[in-house]
Amino acid sequence: MPARYDVIIVGAGITGLASAYHLQKNSPDKRMVVVDRFGAVAQGNTGRSNSMFRNTFSSSDNQVLADSSVDFYLHLQEELKVDVGLQKIGYLWLMNEAQLRRSEPYLEKMRSNGVETVLYERPALRRMLPGMVTEFGASEDARMMGLPDVDGAVFGPKCGRLDPEKLAGFYADGFAKAGGKFAFNSEVSALMIGPTKRLGIEGEPHVWQETRIEGVALSDGEPLLADTVVLAGGAWLNELLEPVGVDGHVKAKKRQLFSVYAKGQDMEGLLRSREFNSIGLAPMVILPKAGVHFKPVSEEGCFWVGCEDEINRQFVNIPDHDLEKYQAEAEYYQRDVLPILSAYFPMFRDAGVKAMWAGLYAYNTLDNLPFVFRNHSLIVAGGDSGSGIMKGDSLGRVVASVYREEKEATLYGGAKYKVSKIGFERRDVEPEAWVI
Amino acid sequence: MPARYDVIIVGAGITGLASAYHLQKNSPDKRMVVVDRFGAVAQGNTGRSNSMFRNTFSSSDNQVLADSSVDFYLHLQEELKVDVGLQKIGYLWLMNEAQLRRSEPYLEKMRSNGVETVLYERPALRRMLPGMVTEFGASEDARMMGLPDVDGAVFGPKCGRLDPEKLAGFYADGFAKAGGKFAFNSEVSALMIGPTKRLGIEGEPHVWQETRIEGVALSDGEPLLADTVVLAGGAWLNELLEPVGVDGHVKAKKRQLFSVYAKGQDMEGLLRSREFNSIGLAPMVILPKAGVHFKPVSEEGCFWVGCEDEINRQFVNIPDHDLEKYQAEAEYYQRDVLPILSAYFPMFRDAGVKAMWAGLYAYNTLDNLPFVFRNHSLIVAGGDSGSGIMKGDSLGRVVASVYREEKEATLYGGAKYKVSKIGFERRDVEPEAWVI
Repeated sequence: MPARYDVIIVGAGITGLASAYHLQKNSPDKRMVVVDRFGAVAQGNTGRSNSMFRNTFSSSDNQVLADSSVDFYLHLQEELKVDVGLQKIGYLWLMNEAQLRRSEPYLEKMRSNGVETVLYERPALRRMLPGMVTEFGASEDARMMGLPDVDGAVFGPKCGRLDPEKLAGFYADGFAKAGGKFAFNSEVSALMIGPTKRLGIEGEPHVWQETRIEGVALSDGEPLLADTVVLAGGAWLNELLEPVGVDGHVKAKKRQLFSVYAKGQDMEGLLRSREFNSIGLAPMVILPKAGVHFKPVSEEGCFWVGCEDEINRQFVNIPDHDLEKYQAEAEYYQRDVLPILSAYFPMFRDAGVKAMWAGLYAYNTLDNLPFVFRNHSLIVAGGDSGSGIMKGDSLGRVVASVYREEKEATLYGGAKYKVSKIGFERRDVEPEAWVI
Repeated sequence: MPARYDVIIVGAGITGLASAYHLQKNSPDKRMVVVDRFGAVAQGNTGRSNSMFRNTFSSSDNQVLADSSVDFYLHLQEELKVDVGLQKIGYLWLMNEAQLRRSEPYLEKMRSNGVETVLYERPALRRMLPGMVTEFGASEDARMMGLPDVDGAVFGPKCGRLDPEKLAGFYADGFAKAGGKFAFNSEVSALMIGPTKRLGIEGEPHVWQETRIEGVALSDGEPLLADTVVLAGGAWLNELLEPVGVDGHVKAKKRQLFSVYAKGQDMEGLLRSREFNSIGLAPMVILPKAGVHFKPVSEEGCFWVGCEDEINRQFVNIPDHDLEKYQAEAEYYQRDVLPILSAYFPMFRDAGVKAMWAGLYAYNTLDNLPFVFRNHSLIVAGGDSGSGIMKGDSLGRVVASVYREEKEATLYGGAKYKVSKIGFERRDVEPEAWVI
């Protein structure tokens, strides 16, 4: 007899674990299991991400989903003393005049939704970030690359970094304590589809039968059956959904991170900036070109540098299971990222690269917002890359509400969120415009 | 030197050809070419489709796009005497009480938008379609299959069939007469991406450069360059769009058609029904279960039978170029379709299958409506399966307007249609609920 559960959650990344935690907490009498092909939690793209959080978005939906999740993480670390590696270092968006002007309506909306931001002007920034180049004058390189001057900046104080493995660990522990089980090293090879009422005749399910997802087949071992399957497979949603004819609404792109030594007085000075937060670390800094950004990783004595490129970067419909196939490219750092980075922050020019890696950024191209949708006995949560961590808690609560057929989820802090808003049948979200 | 055009249209199915026709007609001074891997027009899924048209939809967007296209086709055949094989046989949706009730709001909206429908009650239907079973009483088979009784029907008189190859031929001829060129047997292997301003340095395009689609690479032969590339690749959109990181918003499913002999008095009588149209043919009949339908093909002495199944039917993200790989399944007809069909129309029980074939139905799962969107120098039209023919003329006009950066397209008959409505940035369509 194959094992039977009330709920199978596929995927032990942050979305799957936050979902499992809230599902099991809300329904302690139900038998639940988290299935993942890795041997531990957060071994896929969650563990490869830049693991940053922000509450600064143009979309009210993103604002409420992120802000309440961040509040929960702050509550964990500051009140419950659960170490999730959270550092509220802030986000600093450097901009020229035109970019600042374009941000105004977003900032206005954030203010009206209680999301705090601070505006800095160029003189203050020059003092706060010594060595930063703010004006390019007649520089030919800057003109060729189309680099905007730095005329000011938007700072988000309730933004920062956290440790995704520690956060994943918190959810996993909570899920297990509430009675949840784990099946690690268990690769889901297919969703099992079957008739709602099995008749025992050949060729089931027939077109005249109602069908449902009745469990998951494993590459190795007996299938697992369940009343409800929650799919939180991140970049791999299409792999399981396409064979049963459900649209995953997700496309994955490779994204790269470069860990760069903060050696020498200028780099160390930048790392230990004292002007932005009480921790005494530089904020996450986003340059005015091509989404190039860096953040301090003080325990490594490094900055992590990334670039949210759009061009020439193919979509991967069904990624390889071996994420090592997606390698970071040293040449990309040298030829594409560093010219922009070192134009604004010349101290990076000769900084050595300590490590680099790549992950997959799986997102919903429609509106850059995540989704949770139901299809009979199947619940799918995803499209949240670059947001899986920072909105993970809210998405987990939405999944738990969808499971219980509640129209609204109660987010941390008490805000109500209508779950149909981030479904697809009656999707009703404000598209995100402030994408890095 | 590679060939240079103003516009390259990829795909010689109905969407590509209607686009090419309206593009070239509106911009006679521009050099345009239609590229297709087959040796003639309409050799892909256009030629494999059921090639039906209807103006009966729940979505106002579908109504206006289809109604004006149908008017254009009627104008072609009746006024311009261009034979496009159009037969206004009508669509007949058989329904039980509950289904009729659920249709009421759609019918109301159609009435207010000038789309004509006729309601028939059971006694009239029994007279008009002798031999049809309308009540299943205690039939165990019917209960097992969940077959609704036939309590009435909705009839759409401005619906019918046409010949997709003849219609494709009309657009192709018109395009050629207006100066357009064809490159048949030319397989597009990739969209070429390049910097808007080429600097002649290594590694272009860099992340700091603006990029555009600058042409198409061919499997065999020199690339073709163009200012604008219109992609109308139907089920193959993802193949060209994924490598450049653009979401095709399309998933393809196999759909099958079975051509069944109309032999014997009952079948011939059904084929030659005199009650529905002036042609003296049965209408397209849609049964109240699983979207099983049949239509008369009098010149073959056959009915074509299909079934719009949803279950157990995988999505194909990037289909094989050889459509022969997608075969119709005799067992599917016998086990799944025929039990439903012959329960309502017993004369089909022993009718022989003359031929069967499969094609790919490529659609936009979000709202079941087609799209036309622009991404810099790229225009993509698609998601229109089951609609490519019946909305082809309108989509072609929308593509021509998007190319000319007009906010509204003027559809045949003079209706204005805001082109951003069927884009993705500001998509604003009524999702279609009346799907077969």
